[in-house]
Amino acid sequence: MTQNGVKTAAIIGGGVIGGGWAARFLLMGWNVQVFDPDPEAQRKIGEVIDNARRSLPGLSDVALPDEGKLTFHTTISDAVAGVAWIQESVPERLELKRKVFQTLQEHCPVEAIIGSSTSGFKPSELQGCASRPEQIVVTHPFNPVYLLPLVELVPTDKNTPDMIANAKAILTEIGMFPLHIRAEIDAHIADRFLEAVWREALWLIKDGIATTEEIDNAIRYGFGLRWAQMGLFETYRIAGGEAGMRHFIEQFGPCLEWPWTKLMDVPELTDELIDTVAGQSDAQSGHMTIRQLERARDNNLVTILRGLKAQDFGAGALLNAQDKRIGAPAAMPDDLSKPVVTIRRAIPLDWTDYNGHMNEARYLQAFGDATDRLMEIVGCDADYIASGGSYFTAETHIRHLDEVHAGAKIHIETQVLAGAGKKMHLFHRMFEGTRELATGEHMLIHVSLETRKASDPAPQIAAALGALAQGHAVLPTPVGTGKAIGTK
Amino acid sequence: MTQNGVKTAAIIGGGVIGGGWAARFLLMGWNVQVFDPDPEAQRKIGEVIDNARRSLPGLSDVALPDEGKLTFHTTISDAVAGVAWIQESVPERLELKRKVFQTLQEHCPVEAIIGSSTSGFKPSELQGCASRPEQIVVTHPFNPVYLLPLVELVPTDKNTPDMIANAKAILTEIGMFPLHIRAEIDAHIADRFLEAVWREALWLIKDGIATTEEIDNAIRYGFGLRWAQMGLFETYRIAGGEAGMRHFIEQFGPCLEWPWTKLMDVPELTDELIDTVAGQSDAQSGHMTIRQLERARDNNLVTILRGLKAQDFGAGALLNAQDKRIGAPAAMPDDLSKPVVTIRRAIPLDWTDYNGHMNEARYLQAFGDATDRLMEIVGCDADYIASGGSYFTAETHIRHLDEVHAGAKIHIETQVLAGAGKKMHLFHRMFEGTRELATGEHMLIHVSLETRKASDPAPQIAAALGALAQGHAVLPTPVGTGKAIGTK
Repeated sequence: MTQNGVKTAAIIGGGVIGGGWAARFLLMGWNVQVFDPDPEAQRKIGEVIDNARRSLPGLSDVALPDEGKLTFHTTISDAVAGVAWIQESVPERLELKRKVFQTLQEHCPVEAIIGSSTSGFKPSELQGCASRPEQIVVTHPFNPVYLLPLVELVPTDKNTPDMIANAKAILTEIGMFPLHIRAEIDAHIADRFLEAVWREALWLIKDGIATTEEIDNAIRYGFGLRWAQMGLFETYRIAGGEAGMRHFIEQFGPCLEWPWTKLMDVPELTDELIDTVAGQSDAQSGHMTIRQLERARDNNLVTILRGLKAQDFGAGALLNAQDKRIGAPAAMPDDLSKPVVTIRRAIPLDWTDYNGHMNEARYLQAFGDATDRLMEIVGCDADYIASGGSYFTAETHIRHLDEVHAGAKIHIETQVLAGAGKKMHLFHRMFEGTRELATGEHMLIHVSLETRKASDPAPQIAAALGALAQGHAVLPTPVGTGKAIGTK
Repeated sequence: MTQNGVKTAAIIGGGVIGGGWAARFLLMGWNVQVFDPDPEAQRKIGEVIDNARRSLPGLSDVALPDEGKLTFHTTISDAVAGVAWIQESVPERLELKRKVFQTLQEHCPVEAIIGSSTSGFKPSELQGCASRPEQIVVTHPFNPVYLLPLVELVPTDKNTPDMIANAKAILTEIGMFPLHIRAEIDAHIADRFLEAVWREALWLIKDGIATTEEIDNAIRYGFGLRWAQMGLFETYRIAGGEAGMRHFIEQFGPCLEWPWTKLMDVPELTDELIDTVAGQSDAQSGHMTIRQLERARDNNLVTILRGLKAQDFGAGALLNAQDKRIGAPAAMPDDLSKPVVTIRRAIPLDWTDYNGHMNEARYLQAFGDATDRLMEIVGCDADYIASGGSYFTAETHIRHLDEVHAGAKIHIETQVLAGAGKKMHLFHRMFEGTRELATGEHMLIHVSLETRKASDPAPQIAAALGALAQGHAVLPTPVGTGKAIGTK
């Protein structure tokens, strides 16, 4: 079912979920044929696809296939013509879904896979009245479908192993992780957890213990950060420490008997259940020692926290507020005849690369931060930038003099080589203690953020920058200034 | 309670939690006095502090205060002398904790705050037999304490508003987020969720529905990524779409009645409860439209996913596997007389800065990736690097010619200017279509990863690089080659 090697998917039912599926197939190179009786379908799906275009392709460090072709159809028979995959995302009413499957199977290729986005129905219920039950399987995704990889793949014994393998291959091809659920169960797996937490949250709100915001903060500043990387059991394996998972369960187990929630039907913690959990955890994580797991966890946490910091969101916004509390405010130095110390910091864990040292791009990130600080010092701060002026870097020359590793404390000294008119010519030197690690020479141009063209800075910025340039004129020209690559 | 402005904390009970508290106080500039009768305490706490030294300081973009002084004490009275904060993390037995509080209060300053790490006891239970109950409060942290900001602060009406404010200020000072819980309740807030999920997980394992690994994957490839940034309610607010939180609850509400779990005591979804939840959600997130929330969510998800990708862990490892499937393998080009296209990709969302365009350091990241690809092509791949040889960048010269924005599709053409002996001299040109965005000229030196000194590459690498250099010798010298900053 390919046209010039391009495969086609049918999306039955749009909305946020159907639109997310459409976006995933489309951006991974499939043609997409939509059927949705909602007169607003085209707009709604278009908005989801716009969101996906903005975020999905850049996740990849290689080029994705060319986008497929998106078409809208007024009949199901048109929408399913020649397709290899059909994704059903109509409202959660069993009668409706069964009716849709009947129509689908009257018109679609018999070898196409019909996946249902249902969160509430078991595959055997969906297959119940179908003419070809073996064609239907649950493929339950998570919002936003175009970014989250998880899809719960729930077959029954009506589905052949070949069909299941084919479904997995296609889901993997469009960037998803098919979690094959071996026994069908109401709500599959993930939604059972979501339901349990949702109910507990409603109790807390009803009883006046916590607000929605307090509950969200309890999640996103704590265990949410752990679950984004390791989930429940690998996290608890670490908590068990060298004594292992068995120790953790035995220690934590009795808490199950405590009156901690209103939902109290709990499984009995038999030796058999403990053996099962401990054995599965060994199979899952036993290839790493607890110390290795701790380090992986901390690397991941630092990476996630620093990423959220760059977005100034959640736990990252807390860290930015802390930096603001700890850091000195930007101010012109008392002594204008000395280089300005623009940066003092430790090298983060996530700045290291496969050579075991700070990656070259992070040197420029640190020099860029030094430039930002110098800009703040002369008055080109967030308020000024919001008013429409800024400096853009035109040219950079970096000399890497020595290696540096995560955790090292560095500082950067900045000398203004020139600062007049539209130009700002800076020279940064990076040190660990007295050991010089790198130099960065940078030419920046003041621009209007409206025209994106060179423009004069505001008079107070020109004055402050000029004063620094004049003060620094007494300093020797730093070694490396004005050098081209490969010259001494 | 400061010595030269440095405050002191007492850590009563080490282990993973007490050690985490010790690390936080110490790295945020406090002196720390430890009491722990475990003969292994010094080693165990030392290991936690080592982990923290590796990860915590680099989270900050400014220098943290100088580390405080860490001392171990054989009596509680020594450990609490002159302290402003006492953190109790002894085993979860009420009688033991009460005995510890009695001893603490015999010796400690009356104005010191005594925080308990308890997850199981209410503050009124801890205060029960104390001589000064007003001094004791629950401050329940999450592992790893030195990285996760959440601490549940649970007072009773015995604690004065001043004491609570002081506790919050100190917890904030050491980089934590004190979540003030207004009514004491068994297990506080976060552990109620953890318990609910833990019980549900044990049922799934016991019933043979899922393994520990499948459960972890169901979390970390799906809702765990959402919860790391927004938590439960803000995520569902988005799911409700333009129709809002009320719509979401009314739609999702009936599911509470479904037989989705074995834990079925559920709150009744009255109009009053719906009003409360919807109103709290408005207060929490109403300053952003659904579209703004979606964009923030997607920015955060891309940032987290790309961070995990750099760590090759969890959902990030899935993305790396996908890149490997999609991307062409590294191979010498057929035509050696043309520049090599080393990179084709889209600009990720998280490469943009406050000027609304790709940040300067990301240009170097892309050029660094181009260099890595060229290295792979000549045979300096992961296996070769593992065998002990690599190229380090000695010098870089970047010319920024034009702006580029998130989502743009770029490619990089790489010309080998020279490649002989220990040296590799590359020139990268970055394009969006035919629009030239930047050039990067780079001098790299082959090194031994053991000695970290310059060394000759393996013969097959020298041969491949030499062949490319010879082929590229027919190409014109690119504009900008060999230029110093500010010259034409």
